[in-house]
Amino acid sequence: MSGNSTGELFRLTSFGESHGPAIGGVIDGCPPGLALSEADIQPWLDKRKPGGGKHVTQRQESDRVRLLSGVYEGRTTGTPIAFLIENTDQRSKDYGAIAEQFRPGHADYTYWRKYGLRDPRGGGRASARETAVRVAGGAIARLVLNSLVSKGVLIQGALVQIGARAIDDQRFDWKQVSKNALFCPDAKTASLWDEDLARVRKAGSSIGAVVLVEAQNVPPGLGEPVYDKLDGDIAKAMMGINAAKGVEIGDGFAVASLTGEENADEMRIRKGKPVFLSNHAGGILGGISSGQPIRVRIAFKPTSSILTPRKSIDLHGQEVEIITKGRHDPCVGIRAVPVAEAMLALVLADHLLRHRGQCGTILK
Amino acid sequence: MSGNSTGELFRLTSFGESHGPAIGGVIDGCPPGLALSEADIQPWLDKRKPGGGKHVTQRQESDRVRLLSGVYEGRTTGTPIAFLIENTDQRSKDYGAIAEQFRPGHADYTYWRKYGLRDPRGGGRASARETAVRVAGGAIARLVLNSLVSKGVLIQGALVQIGARAIDDQRFDWKQVSKNALFCPDAKTASLWDEDLARVRKAGSSIGAVVLVEAQNVPPGLGEPVYDKLDGDIAKAMMGINAAKGVEIGDGFAVASLTGEENADEMRIRKGKPVFLSNHAGGILGGISSGQPIRVRIAFKPTSSILTPRKSIDLHGQEVEIITKGRHDPCVGIRAVPVAEAMLALVLADHLLRHRGQCGTILK
Amino acid sequence: MSGNSTGELFRLTSFGESHGPAIGGVIDGCPPGLALSEADIQPWLDKRKPGGGKHVTQRQESDRVRLLSGVYEGRTTGTPIAFLIENTDQRSKDYGAIAEQFRPGHADYTYWRKYGLRDPRGGGRASARETAVRVAGGAIARLVLNSLVSKGVLIQGALVQIGARAIDDQRFDWKQVSKNALFCPDAKTASLWDEDLARVRKAGSSIGAVVLVEAQNVPPGLGEPVYDKLDGDIAKAMMGINAAKGVEIGDGFAVASLTGEENADEMRIRKGKPVFLSNHAGGILGGISSGQPIRVRIAFKPTSSILTPRKSIDLHGQEVEIITKGRHDPCVGIRAVPVAEAMLALVLADHLLRHRGQCGTILK
Amino acid sequence: MSGNSTGELFRLTSFGESHGPAIGGVIDGCPPGLALSEADIQPWLDKRKPGGGKHVTQRQESDRVRLLSGVYEGRTTGTPIAFLIENTDQRSKDYGAIAEQFRPGHADYTYWRKYGLRDPRGGGRASARETAVRVAGGAIARLVLNSLVSKGVLIQGALVQIGARAIDDQRFDWKQVSKNALFCPDAKTASLWDEDLARVRKAGSSIGAVVLVEAQNVPPGLGEPVYDKLDGDIAKAMMGINAAKGVEIGDGFAVASLTGEENADEMRIRKGKPVFLSNHAGGILGGISSGQPIRVRIAFKPTSSILTPRKSIDLHGQEVEIITKGRHDPCVGIRAVPVAEAMLALVLADHLLRHRGQCGTILK
Repeated sequence: MSGNSTGELFRLTSFGESHGPAIGGVIDGCPPGLALSEADIQPWLDKRKPGGGKHVTQRQESDRVRLLSGVYEGRTTGTPIAFLIENTDQRSKDYGAIAEQFRPGHADYTYWRKYGLRDPRGGGRASARETAVRVAGGAIARLVLNSLVSKGVLIQGALVQIGARAIDDQRFDWKQVSKNALFCPDAKTASLWDEDLARVRKAGSSIGAVVLVEAQNVPPGLGEPVYDKLDGDIAKAMMGINAAKGVEIGDGFAVASLTGEENADEMRIRKGKPVFLSNHAGGILGGISSGQPIRVRIAFKPTSSILTPRKSIDLHGQEVEIITKGRHDPCVGIRAVPVAEAMLALVLADHLLRHRGQCGTILK
Repeated sequence: MSGNSTGELFRLTSFGESHGPAIGGVIDGCPPGLALSEADIQPWLDKRKPGGGKHVTQRQESDRVRLLSGVYEGRTTGTPIAFLIENTDQRSKDYGAIAEQFRPGHADYTYWRKYGLRDPRGGGRASARETAVRVAGGAIARLVLNSLVSKGVLIQGALVQIGARAIDDQRFDWKQVSKNALFCPDAKTASLWDEDLARVRKAGSSIGAVVLVEAQNVPPGLGEPVYDKLDGDIAKAMMGINAAKGVEIGDGFAVASLTGEENADEMRIRKGKPVFLSNHAGGILGGISSGQPIRVRIAFKPTSSILTPRKSIDLHGQEVEIITKGRHDPCVGIRAVPVAEAMLALVLADHLLRHRGQCGTILK
Repeated sequence: MSGNSTGELFRLTSFGESHGPAIGGVIDGCPPGLALSEADIQPWLDKRKPGGGKHVTQRQESDRVRLLSGVYEGRTTGTPIAFLIENTDQRSKDYGAIAEQFRPGHADYTYWRKYGLRDPRGGGRASARETAVRVAGGAIARLVLNSLVSKGVLIQGALVQIGARAIDDQRFDWKQVSKNALFCPDAKTASLWDEDLARVRKAGSSIGAVVLVEAQNVPPGLGEPVYDKLDGDIAKAMMGINAAKGVEIGDGFAVASLTGEENADEMRIRKGKPVFLSNHAGGILGGISSGQPIRVRIAFKPTSSILTPRKSIDLHGQEVEIITKGRHDPCVGIRAVPVAEAMLALVLADHLLRHRGQCGTILK
Repeated sequence: MSGNSTGELFRLTSFGESHGPAIGGVIDGCPPGLALSEADIQPWLDKRKPGGGKHVTQRQESDRVRLLSGVYEGRTTGTPIAFLIENTDQRSKDYGAIAEQFRPGHADYTYWRKYGLRDPRGGGRASARETAVRVAGGAIARLVLNSLVSKGVLIQGALVQIGARAIDDQRFDWKQVSKNALFCPDAKTASLWDEDLARVRKAGSSIGAVVLVEAQNVPPGLGEPVYDKLDGDIAKAMMGINAAKGVEIGDGFAVASLTGEENADEMRIRKGKPVFLSNHAGGILGGISSGQPIRVRIAFKPTSSILTPRKSIDLHGQEVEIITKGRHDPCVGIRAVPVAEAMLALVLADHLLRHRGQCGTILK
C-alpha cells in the first residue's frame, strides 16, 4: 500500500533507485503458458533507453533485462515473474554537490518532507530511471493482451507537441513514428522539433511536450465502474509517469466547448456489427471500453534540470541558487512515449483479467 | 476489486442504482473519536442536490442521509460507518421506452457489452445519482482532514468554464462561488452563463464545462510514489466522475509550452519557513504534496441526454433514432463541483492515514 | 483495510452493530445474470437465527433481509449487491450496567484499548450478531458456486463435539444434521448433548464446541500460492468467526503423529479419472484444491457470558466482579455451524473468480 | 492478487523457484530511517538454512542475501526494499525422473491442474525453499517492531512435538531452544527426538510435528475486526507455511472442553496496570491484541518425500509407483520454526502500521 505496485490481478511491483545496484520488478498474476523470454522485453527497453537519440540524456545504460523466475522451458508458469536490470553507469559523483539542496521542480523537497531522509544519488527512487521497470512490465502485459485477444491489441504512442509547436493532424502517420528519434508522426514537424530542441539544449534549457497513446482492438467491456473505471485507471497510470501534469481521454478538455449534439458518438450497423461514427469519447463510455480505439493524451512538463540558476533552499533552511548539471534530456516527454505505451498495456492487461474473473465471457 | 470501493486505509464502498430502493455507502477505516452526525453530511448533499438551481435536473430528491452504524453517542467508533439515502422520486416510466436502445454518449452500450444485461431505469448504476454517495463520503473525509490537520484543510471548487466561455481569472473570487447557482467565482461571467444556459436549455441541447478544485493547508508528505502518487490518485478520482474527460494538476497542459526556467517553482525562506514563489506544480512534486495549495482542473463533456435525434442501435441490432426526454441538466459540470470537492477530500484523507501508517510523523 | 471486507474479486463488506439501527453488507464483484432474490438468502438467515432452538440466545430477531441494489428483474447486474437487516429487538437496557466494565473473555477491553472508546450495547461491533451478514453473503456465494460449477458445490456443516463429548464417527450421517436443533450428525450424541446443555444452562455456565465443515465438488485448481493459499484463506475466514480458537484442514493436528507413508493420499485411475484413495489432506495440496472434499474443523471457546462472577476491571482502573446477565447461548458453537458454512462459501466463490481471472480455464 | 504478496501496509512480495536462478522479495511500506544492512537478515537465514543440522535436508545453500534497493547510507528510505538470494546448488538432475509424475502429498498434481503446466525442478514454486524469502522479510519486520515498540517485541519459536512425542511442559525452557538442532525447549525430549529421527531417517520415512510460536510485548490494540482480525491473519500466515495443517491460538482445540468459568482470563490491577491472571486466549480478544503474549501452535504433516513406494499417476493418466529420492528432511516441522517466527513478525509489523494509520495512537 506504499504504492509501488500497480494492477489488481495483473500486478507489477517495482523496486530500485537510479544509482543503487539494480532496478527491477515482479509481475504477479500472469496467465500461465505464455511464451516468454528476455527477447520479448529487451526491444522495448532499447526503445526507451537513454543515449539512443541526441535529445535524450547521455547516460549510457546497457539496460539488460534478466528474468529470475516464473518461466519454465520458455513458458510462463503462473508464478511470479521477477526481472532485474543492473545499474551499470552510476557516476554518483555527478550528483554529490546537491545532496543537501532541493532542486526546483524535482521531488527532492517532498521526499525529504515525507521520509525525513532521501537518497540523493541521481534522484534516487524519483528518477525517471524507474520507468524502465514499467517498460519491462508493459512488454509482458502486451504478451497477455495479444494472447487473450484474438486480433491482438495494438498499442502505439507518439509525441504530438513540443513546446508551443504541435504536429499537423492532417499529416499524422503512425508509420513515421519509428523513422525519427522523436517518436513524431509528422515528418515535417519532426525536423522543426530537431531545430527547436537544438536551440533549447544550447541554452541549457528544457521544454514541455504532449504525448498521444492509442490502443486498437481493445475488447468492449473492460473497466470496473464506478471507482475503477477504465479511464480512471488510465488517468492514474499516466499521471503517475514522471513529469506528467495532465491527462485527456478522447477529446479531453475540448469537450468543454462542445454541445451534446457534437459530442454524441452516433452508432450504426455495418456488415452486421455495431460501429461508431465518431470517437469523441476516446473509446470509453461510463468507464467501460466500447471497442473503439482508446485515445489518451498526456502533458509533460519541461525537464527540471536546467543550467540557468534557480532560487531554492537547502535542508538547513539556507537560501541557495541551483544549477543542475549532469546528463539530462531537454525534453522528458520524448522518452515518455514508450513509458506511456507500457502503462496503457499494464492497465489493459489488468482489466482484461479482472473482467474475465467477474464476467467470464469470451471477449471479441 | 469490481471497483466500487475507493481508498486504501480510508475506504468508501458505494452501492445503489438511480431507481432502486436506495443508494448508500460504507466508510471503513475512519479514525475513532470524531464527532459525527447526519448534520455533518446533509449540507453537502443539499449543495449537490438536483432541483436546487434552475439549470440542473428537475428530479426532486429529498436526499436525506441516514447513518446506520459506526457512531456511538455522537462519536465515530472506528468501525464501519454505513449511510443510506432512500430513492424517493423514481418515476421509472420516464425511461421505459429506451430500455432496449443505446443512448449515444451514455453507458448503455458498454454496460450491456460488459455484463450482458443492464438496469435501464434512469441509467441504473451509471447514473450521476451515485455521486451523492461520493459527496456523503467526502463529508466524512473532510472531518478526518480537519481533525488531523491542525489548521484544517480547506477544499473549494468552482466552475471556471461553460462551453467556450471561461471566467476572467482577474475577477476570480472564492466568495462569489456560493452567491450564484452555478458555483461561478466571477460574478460577471455567472450572469453571462445564465444566458448561455437558457439558450442551451431552450434548444434541448447541452454544453460542456471545466471545474477547478483547490485544497489549502494540505500537509507536505502525502502521496505514495511511484504508482500511488498523490496526483495519480487525484487524476483517477476525478476522471472517474461521470462525464469527466480530462484532468490537469497545476498548469496542466499548459506546461507543454513552458521552458524549465518558467516552470520551476523557486523557493525562499520567509519567517523561517520554506515558501514557494509560484505554484506551477499545483502543490505536488514527485507525486508528493509540497504544502502548497493543490490545484486540479477537470473537463466535463456535455450532458448526453438531448432532444435532437441522434443515430444509434438497439440490442437487437436494429438502427434507431433516439431523443432522450426526461429531467436532465443541460450542463452536468455544474453539479460536478461538489462531487469533485468530495473526491479530493476522499483522496487526501486516505493519503493522510496511509502516510501516518508508514511514516508516523506529526504532520504540520 | 480496516478489515471489514473479505474476498478479493468476490468481496463482502460488512457493517453494523448489535444494537444500532441495522446491520448489512455489500457484495461487490458478483457475476452478472444470476437469479437472486431475498428468498435465496432468507432461509440461511433463519437457520442461523437466535431463538430457533432452546440452546441458543433468547433474543428475538426477525432478521428479515432486504436487497437494496445490484438486482434488476430478478437477476444480478454485476453491480454491488447491498443488503440490509434491521435490528428490531435491541433492548439496550440489558447491557447498560456493564458499559464501563470489561467482561472477561469478551472484546470489551481490547476495543477500548484500540479505539479509545467503544459501543457497549450488546457487544457493539464485536457481537455475534454480525455473523448474520456473513450468512447472507454466504448465501449469495453459494449461488455463484452453483452457477459456475456444473455439478454445484455442496457445503455442509455439523457440530461434532460439545465439551468433552465428541460424536461417534461411525454414526456420522449428514442427513441427521437437519433433524436436530444442534446440527449434530449423530442422533445418539445429539440427545446426550441435549442433557449436557441443559445442565450447563442450569448452572449459568457455558461450554466449548468443535464444528466440521465440508465442501464437495470443489473444482481442482482453486487457491493462490504462496501467501493466498486456499487453506490459508479458509483458516483466516474460520479463525475470524467470533470465539474461534483453532482451525484444522484435513487431519489437522493429528498429522503430527503420522508417518509419511500413512499421510500420503495415494492416487489411482478409476473410470478414466484420477481418484485419491484417502483424504488426509482435506482436499488441499500446496494451497490448491485437489478436487477432493475440502474438510475443515474449527474449535469454539465457551460463551464468555456466564452467571458465575469473574474478576475484572473497569475503564477507571478499578477492580470489579462481573456477572453477565442477558440472553446468551450456553454454546456459541451451535450457531457457528451456518456461519462456518457461509465463510467457506465466500472463500470458495472468491477463489473461483480469482482462478478464472488468471487462468481462464473451464473448471470441471 | 495471485497471492504472492502478504501484508497491507508492510507488504512482502515474494518470487522464485527452487531451481531457478534466484529467489527473493520486495518489502514495500517499511518505515523510513531504520538501520538496515544484510547483516540484520543473514543470521535468520542461517538459522533456517538446510544443512545446518543432521536432521534437515543435505542440500547445501550458502543463502547469501543481497539488498538491492530501499537503503541509503545504512538507513531505510521508505522506498521498496528488494533482496535477492541466488540459488547456488540446483542439481536439477535429482528431480528429472519425476517431472511427469505426481508425488503423493506434494503439490505436483494441483499445480498441474491449476496452471496446465508446472516447473518440476525441486518442487518449483511449491518448494520449501521459498520460505527463505519469508525469513528474510521477517527479519526486516522484526526491525520495524523493535523500532516502534519501546520495549521491543520478542518473537520466539520452538518445536514442541515430533510424532507422538510431545515435550514435557514442566521442563519448557526457552533457553534450551538454541542449544539443540531441533529447536526443542526441553533438553530431555530433544535427545529422545534425536533417536526417533534417526530411526525415521533410517527407514526412509518421515514424521509430523507441532511448532509453538510466541510474541511478547505486543502492544494492545493490534488487529482489524471483523474480517482482518489479528488471529485471522496469523492463522492465514501459519496455514500458508508449507505442510501446515492446523493452527491454534491460545488454548486452541482444548477450549472445546472448557467451561466459561475455566476459559475466562480474569483481570486485576497490579502496580497500577491491568494484568490478566491467565492466558487461555493466547493474547487476542475479539481479534485484537490484549497486551498478553500471543501464543500460536501449528501442526506440520510429515515430509511427503519418502523411500517407500506410493501409488500415484502421471500426467498421461497412467498409474505409477513413486519413490522420492533426493535430499529431504525427515521432519519438515524442524525448519518451520524460524519460518513461523518470521510469519508472526510480518503479521505483527503490518498490523502495527495499519493500527497507526487509522488510530494514530502511541502504543505502549
